[in-house]
Amino acid sequence: MFKGIYTPIVTPFDANEQIDYDYMKHNLDIWGKTDLDGIVVLGSNGEFVYLNQEEKLELVKFVKENFNPKKKIIVGTACESTKETIALSEKMAELGADAVLLLPPNYFKGGMKEDILYKYFTDVADAISIPVMIYNMPGNTGINLSSALIAKLSKHSNIVGIKDTSGNIVQISEIVRDTDDDFAVFAGNAGYLLPALAVGARGATLALANIMPEECCRLVSLFKEGKLDEARELQLKLIEINFAVTGKFGVAGLKYALDLLGYKGGQPRRPLVPVSEDTKKVIEELLRKYGALK
Amino acid sequence: MFKGIYTPIVTPFDANEQIDYDYMKHNLDIWGKTDLDGIVVLGSNGEFVYLNQEEKLELVKFVKENFNPKKKIIVGTACESTKETIALSEKMAELGADAVLLLPPNYFKGGMKEDILYKYFTDVADAISIPVMIYNMPGNTGINLSSALIAKLSKHSNIVGIKDTSGNIVQISEIVRDTDDDFAVFAGNAGYLLPALAVGARGATLALANIMPEECCRLVSLFKEGKLDEARELQLKLIEINFAVTGKFGVAGLKYALDLLGYKGGQPRRPLVPVSEDTKKVIEELLRKYGALK
Amino acid sequence: MFKGIYTPIVTPFDANEQIDYDYMKHNLDIWGKTDLDGIVVLGSNGEFVYLNQEEKLELVKFVKENFNPKKKIIVGTACESTKETIALSEKMAELGADAVLLLPPNYFKGGMKEDILYKYFTDVADAISIPVMIYNMPGNTGINLSSALIAKLSKHSNIVGIKDTSGNIVQISEIVRDTDDDFAVFAGNAGYLLPALAVGARGATLALANIMPEECCRLVSLFKEGKLDEARELQLKLIEINFAVTGKFGVAGLKYALDLLGYKGGQPRRPLVPVSEDTKKVIEELLRKYGALK
Amino acid sequence: MFKGIYTPIVTPFDANEQIDYDYMKHNLDIWGKTDLDGIVVLGSNGEFVYLNQEEKLELVKFVKENFNPKKKIIVGTACESTKETIALSEKMAELGADAVLLLPPNYFKGGMKEDILYKYFTDVADAISIPVMIYNMPGNTGINLSSALIAKLSKHSNIVGIKDTSGNIVQISEIVRDTDDDFAVFAGNAGYLLPALAVGARGATLALANIMPEECCRLVSLFKEGKLDEARELQLKLIEINFAVTGKFGVAGLKYALDLLGYKGGQPRRPLVPVSEDTKKVIEELLRKYGALK
Repeated sequence: MFKGIYTPIVTPFDANEQIDYDYMKHNLDIWGKTDLDGIVVLGSNGEFVYLNQEEKLELVKFVKENFNPKKKIIVGTACESTKETIALSEKMAELGADAVLLLPPNYFKGGMKEDILYKYFTDVADAISIPVMIYNMPGNTGINLSSALIAKLSKHSNIVGIKDTSGNIVQISEIVRDTDDDFAVFAGNAGYLLPALAVGARGATLALANIMPEECCRLVSLFKEGKLDEARELQLKLIEINFAVTGKFGVAGLKYALDLLGYKGGQPRRPLVPVSEDTKKVIEELLRKYGALK
Repeated sequence: MFKGIYTPIVTPFDANEQIDYDYMKHNLDIWGKTDLDGIVVLGSNGEFVYLNQEEKLELVKFVKENFNPKKKIIVGTACESTKETIALSEKMAELGADAVLLLPPNYFKGGMKEDILYKYFTDVADAISIPVMIYNMPGNTGINLSSALIAKLSKHSNIVGIKDTSGNIVQISEIVRDTDDDFAVFAGNAGYLLPALAVGARGATLALANIMPEECCRLVSLFKEGKLDEARELQLKLIEINFAVTGKFGVAGLKYALDLLGYKGGQPRRPLVPVSEDTKKVIEELLRKYGALK
Repeated sequence: MFKGIYTPIVTPFDANEQIDYDYMKHNLDIWGKTDLDGIVVLGSNGEFVYLNQEEKLELVKFVKENFNPKKKIIVGTACESTKETIALSEKMAELGADAVLLLPPNYFKGGMKEDILYKYFTDVADAISIPVMIYNMPGNTGINLSSALIAKLSKHSNIVGIKDTSGNIVQISEIVRDTDDDFAVFAGNAGYLLPALAVGARGATLALANIMPEECCRLVSLFKEGKLDEARELQLKLIEINFAVTGKFGVAGLKYALDLLGYKGGQPRRPLVPVSEDTKKVIEELLRKYGALK
Repeated sequence: MFKGIYTPIVTPFDANEQIDYDYMKHNLDIWGKTDLDGIVVLGSNGEFVYLNQEEKLELVKFVKENFNPKKKIIVGTACESTKETIALSEKMAELGADAVLLLPPNYFKGGMKEDILYKYFTDVADAISIPVMIYNMPGNTGINLSSALIAKLSKHSNIVGIKDTSGNIVQISEIVRDTDDDFAVFAGNAGYLLPALAVGARGATLALANIMPEECCRLVSLFKEGKLDEARELQLKLIEINFAVTGKFGVAGLKYALDLLGYKGGQPRRPLVPVSEDTKKVIEELLRKYGALK
């Protein structure tokens, strides 16, 4: 069911650190007209950790009402406790989310053994009425979900895919090898979209697609059409700007790039701060260098 | 102002994963009669990540009403966002907390540069009416707060101390060296209480003191009296049981040890699970071996 | 100049821990008849760290005299000091090596800043008469050579390529992007051969090619012919056995697999020990499962 | 048998990267008149990785002939292979070394399981005629030797102690707890000398003692005399200069500090380079600040 390119949309804040719904509407309108298959609300780049539960519900309600109804909406609902995750997920289901994207609990890193994590994901999948997509994001959580654990979890009828942001292409290959064809293996970063497709990934959830949705979709098309040289050329081109807005300069960098490209990035919420003037110039130059900004 | 031994108290849950206030009262009564200087509510071992905001407020209100008023209460209030942290901290101040214990925001590990962290801690310290104690816990957060950052933060009039659970004794030494005498440098784990005292720590916040408050306090007394051989003997004795209940078996292990020793540990909240029967035997044997259980 | 598939050949030892030249000859004869483009002598899997300088020279002399002269011989010559590396490399040049493969010095990990490493590689490349291929192997050295450093080193006329065993496919992509077309970017492990080719790698040096040279070469051919589905199928098939003989069971596992498949693996040298009986069964089953062993 | 303060002496090189024996003699004469219990030749700070086998033998022969015969000489003899380690160790025994200091083999980090390491250390201890001191140096080797492994190895009659440079004070405490009183537990860095003594270490091998032998010995004396406040004051004073010459600026920094203080540091061997002019100023200022340089 889940395939193609999704983007984890940013949450624009105003100068008072409140969600800016005008900006959000502006962006949703643009993304809704692209080839994106859907969006992820409350992902890492959506600064989900900085929103309280009321804000999360309000935001998803707004997105559901204002986004192209032909495209899918996946919502990040992971909380540290199982019961809170279930409660929030079920509320998102009621609001019309198509699936939830679930990080593993990670504060007690040493205690999150595979049996504990298996139980967490299946407890939630058992209890909620929409599908679960697993989110492996070791850079932020400090925990890697092994391919063996993912293979085991993929047998659950309500666990339908994984977004793997480990960057470990062998692990992604193993997951493709060890799961059924209808299990959605998604690359989690545009830096390795082509390699992931080459080993059998079905799609991707890419922060870069906030600002370059069509280029991300085009890479998938080129690959499907067997135009591997063009796909490689595009992949190598996307890496540097991708690293700038998803690695080096983080969410604040991505928001500034949105501002430059006709979207409305808005402010990040503290402790994050807007990018410096120097960083602005670097991002602007990168976007020009790669032709995104004329 | 802050010195001596504190314990980060566990939060007992019942079979339905609700806070068990009878158990909590039982434990508070015992701890209140010990030599402990105070307690930390909503620390790591208090499973703060598994409680929602309403539960946190209710719990602290209960503790304030039921704990020995001569002892201090420090409350863990870190949220990922600055504004949420300030809001929760100020509510805890209104409930009568003596100080807050603040972890750094840590989801965006790569983005938490020292200037961002400096701003986070000082923004909160500026905004709230009770003192801030910093909590360095790299094992859970994936972020180490350097001695240079701590020294800089210690200049803020409302930042009064640090609980360092890094286990890095050189770093603890550097913090002692680079902060004023009234800045409270606390060891964060009983495994290195004596070494920390030897290099000048003023106190400690110890999970082990949940179950062995008097032994922890006695180690401080022996050290102060210059009885270093006895202090060393006690330190070496405490290491193994300390590792079992704070490292290897985690919060669930600590809760079972409480059950064995006349306290009421109760259940952990999911995703955590109670210790296995095999682990119960190991903990029981350890407590017997070291004389805590007769 | 360098392209295609190379294998870092094992060094078989007899029961007295001496190099077994009969075994070596036996293997060289088989590898010499395959589609391999060449071999690496004294690579990691050649247990170069366990051979003294005299043994290294004797071994390379023997290989040069006994290996198919139409194929290339690359020799691992890294020592910790610059002068020792130069001296050994020059001796290997005299013995007829086509190039040297150079790990970075790595004992003083903290001191190996990029300027130090740049100087090391260019000092050696300046001083010797055969080309240098860089060997990035963070798993064993604890040091990752960044794509920026590699790009800078690639400008040196006597530095002709890199074997990257980091497994970081984005880094490999960046190296392809930032180096000239005649700089040989080689994958360093069969686990990600196809992804590396997809982003533009020119070849690979694969421990797996000790035992499955033709399958490794076939993957390259399938890729070049645009048969991507078949290439992917083969890649996914190779991952498990590759992990067994290059990761999990190490050199001893690779040697036992050689024994099973008509080569002569011999003993590893201490501290390495032969694989256990249980491990032998696992390797045998894996080789049967993937059709290598009938 | 082994106790007190040792220093791992530097190996001075001349402008042609040859060992400067005049410089060596000069330094040995000074160290010989201090309160040091002995020296370690061919330790990390002796740049042992940059010397070939002939140089190692020549150097130890020279040291034996020129150092105060009342003090002990321990020699670093670890090679990656067991047989080479035994051969070199036995030659050092013939030259009059009092003991060998043995790092674990570490190139194949993933393969160095505890049973392999146990066998390595006991194979060597069985085969040689002088005692073995274990050297745990995870920063350079990437391998930590656990307290459980050390406790097991300590039962061997020819394994007499450990230099622990992990900086893990709990691990050092566990080793003290789990080994007999005559097993020499040595701190491996001056940054935590006092904490190590507090938990029961018998001595230390300190790079800092190259330049400040008397201060290091005085810290031990103060501790033994129960003058804990003075010991702490000295400990806190030594940390910064210790970090400069053993961490931040490495061997080259230590050599420059030797030059400043009346010793002869000489050049490091490539790939290491002498410290920059800026670093020279920093080191000079630090030595003045702490009173070592007048």
